[in-house]
Parts: sequence; structure tokens; C-alpha cells
Amino acid sequence: TGKYHEDMNGRDTIATDLNVLADFDPVLPESYKDSEFVMLGNLTPAVQARVLDQLTDPKLVALDTMNFWMDVALDDLHAVIKRIDVLLINDEEARQLTGERTLVRAAEKIQAMGVSYLVIKKGEHGALLFGDDQVFFAPALPLAEVFDPTGAGDTFAGGFMGYLASCPNVSFDMMKRAVIFGSALASYTCEAFGTECLIDVKRDDLDVRAGKFLELVRFDLKHDTSDMTTA
Amino acid sequence: TGKYHEDMNGRDTIATDLNVLADFDPVLPESYKDSEFVMLGNLTPAVQARVLDQLTDPKLVALDTMNFWMDVALDDLHAVIKRIDVLLINDEEARQLTGERTLVRAAEKIQAMGVSYLVIKKGEHGALLFGDDQVFFAPALPLAEVFDPTGAGDTFAGGFMGYLASCPNVSFDMMKRAVIFGSALASYTCEAFGTECLIDVKRDDLDVRAGKFLELVRFDLKHDTSDMTTA
Repeated sequence: TGKYHEDMNGRDTIATDLNVLADFDPVLPESYKDSEFVMLGNLTPAVQARVLDQLTDPKLVALDTMNFWMDVALDDLHAVIKRIDVLLINDEEARQLTGERTLVRAAEKIQAMGVSYLVIKKGEHGALLFGDDQVFFAPALPLAEVFDPTGAGDTFAGGFMGYLASCPNVSFDMMKRAVIFGSALASYTCEAFGTECLIDVKRDDLDVRAGKFLELVRFDLKHDTSDMTTA
Repeated sequence: TGKYHEDMNGRDTIATDLNVLADFDPVLPESYKDSEFVMLGNLTPAVQARVLDQLTDPKLVALDTMNFWMDVALDDLHAVIKRIDVLLINDEEARQLTGERTLVRAAEKIQAMGVSYLVIKKGEHGALLFGDDQVFFAPALPLAEVFDPTGAGDTFAGGFMGYLASCPNVSFDMMKRAVIFGSALASYTCEAFGTECLIDVKRDDLDVRAGKFLELVRFDLKHDTSDMTTA
């Protein structure tokens, strides 16, 4: 249970009730065990590890987590983080996980934990991608109305992994596009309640929306020197 | 007097003491009256108007303000906003000035007040530029250490106006570059106390730093179809 702040960006977690998930012991169907692209959703780190144990040879494993697991299962979380390729967390969680104030320092520490790529999500402020000694800043689409951001993080993860699964290899350029497609998909989630806006999204719509992200940040530093009044 | 939040982004204003500025009645020297590019710093809106009254034919007037003036001199602020071209404020101030929750709606209302270009500064989250029916999202440079952000907003304004004053005409593309150069200059301010880091900055250094902003957001959406495993 949580409550969004008035600006619909920050969020206070009021209570975390695990309910049936407290004793969840997932058994993967045989046909899932050779999955190449694996997204470990935000659950008990021990459960995430148990899923990993059942996979034969994953090509890329991403993991989502939250402050709750840092409070109650930090050692298990560190253990599972060592086994993954991509960590997806928000800015507040990155700060809590590392005790660092700036995201640059937090990213250094998280990469040193054994993570190749790190995505720090900042809600309406976009996302930062770290890896391969590079940084990428993905904007969020400025929305006129934010109806309900619930599920935006999970939608982001789905779009991000879906894009990567369409690529034959993982590079920083592919990762950048994956962050953009994840953000584009997540922007639909904020526009209506639950999954309402996502149901009718076609791939073409998504391409158009991703193009808006490109427009949003596109600039160049050169202009004709004939344009200049001073050198 | 104010206090920065632990993340060095948010700020609480504890007290605003006008001191000598309470009775400030600026008289422009003769040689200043034909200034073409005018930056009205964050002061009583009536003082800002009095400076404007003394200018013969400014080409571009920008204005900075803050929540304090919205609380105590809103009518005067609205009156001076009608006379300017560019408004520079932060996200919290944009929300207070308009009563809108999203920055897109706030920007619509502020543009309807008679402002051609609007820059909404978001500290470590970058800045949004609105105008000519376009939106531009400028990132902030992710810094490993934020020593003291005091003066970053004023440095931004200085770099922004300085860049525009070097351009013969004002277009959205010029505005975009002005926001980038303002942000690049402001990033130096955060790295040391007061103006220490700014003193030795050369134009070449600034160009290199502005180039980092370009790298930070550069991406494309196309890749070779030969790279794709699925269409």
C-alpha cells in the first residue's frame, strides 16, 4: 500500500503486505527454463535467486527491487545482485543501497557490486543508464495529465526487456534504445488507470512515441558562423 | 536564508530578509539604457518594472523570480511578466504560479500570460524549455560531487543570456543551445564554493563541457535490420 505525492512523482510506502508471496516458492515450467532474457520482478531476493537456479543458460538477467528488501534482506539482495547483468532501481533506492548522495557515486558502487548495466529511474525526471564506462540520460515525456503512475516501473521493465530480446547482442547503444522504448511504453501507463492505455498500443504507435523522445532532446552546438555577431 | 535538502536538490527558504533591497530604487547609468539583452534578476517585481521603464529598446528581456514574490506581490509579478520575453523559474515555482500539477499545463498557462519562451529549471534533473509550440528537455550533467549549488540558478541565467547575446536572432534552436550553455556553466558553480570554479573557466572549456551534454542524451532509434532477430 502506498500513496503518491501531490506531484505524482514521489511515493510513500505505507505498508508492504506480502500475503501469499511470503511463502512463494516458484517452480518454473520446463518450457521456461531455457529462457534467454529474464526479468526478475520486485520480490524477496531469495525467491529471485531460486528462479535463477532453475534457468539453464540465460543470456541477460535483469532485476528490479525496492527499499523494503534493502531493509529486511540486504545480504540476500547483495548475493543475487552478483548474479545478474542489469539492475533497475529508482534514485532513492540507489541512494539507500549505497549510502551515497550523488547518483554518479551510487552508480560506481553498484557497478562494483558486479552489475554490468544499471538503470536508475527518476519518474517524471527520466532515467540514467550506466555501463561500459558511459552514461546516458533518457528524458521522460512531459505529460499534460498524469492519471495514475501505478505500474509504470513494471511497464518500463517490460518494454526494456522486450526491446533487448529483439536484439542479437547487447551493447550500450542497444541499452540506450531499450531505455527509450521502456520509457515510451511506460508513458502510456501513466495516462490511464491500470493497463487501459496499454491494451491498444500497436508497435507503430510505440515507434511514433519513441520518436517524440528523440525530438525532445535533439540539439546541436554548432551554428553557421555567419549567424554569429561575436566570435 | 535557506537550507538545501540532503540530496542537495530541493531547498527550503527559511527566511527572506530584503535588507537594503527593501527600498532599492535602481537608476540605470546612461550607457546601460540601450542594452539589447536584459536579465532582470530575482527582485521585487516593482523594481524589475522600474528597470524596464528606463530601457529604450531592449531586444530580449528575461526575468527570474521566486515563490516569495508570488506570496507577497503576485499582481505586480503578473504585470511585469506581461512585458518580458523569457521567464526563468524552477518547477516548484511554475506549479505555484499556475496552480497546475503537471509542468506541461503550467507551461501552457505561463505562455498564455504573455511569455514567448519559458525555461523551467529542475536542478539535478535538468531543465525544460517551452516556446514556438515546441518542448526541449535539457539534461543536467550528473556530478560525482555537489559541493555547493548556491548561485547555480544565477550562473545559468548568465550563461543563457551570454549565449543569446552572441546570436543575431532568437529562434528555438538558439534557445536550446542557450539552455545547454547555461547548464554547462552552472555545472561549474556546483563543483566548488561560490564562484571559485567559474573564475578559471575558458570558452574552450565551456565548449568541451557543452559537448558532454550532447553525448549524454545522444541516441538513435534505428539500427541495421541485419542486427534484428525479429522484425
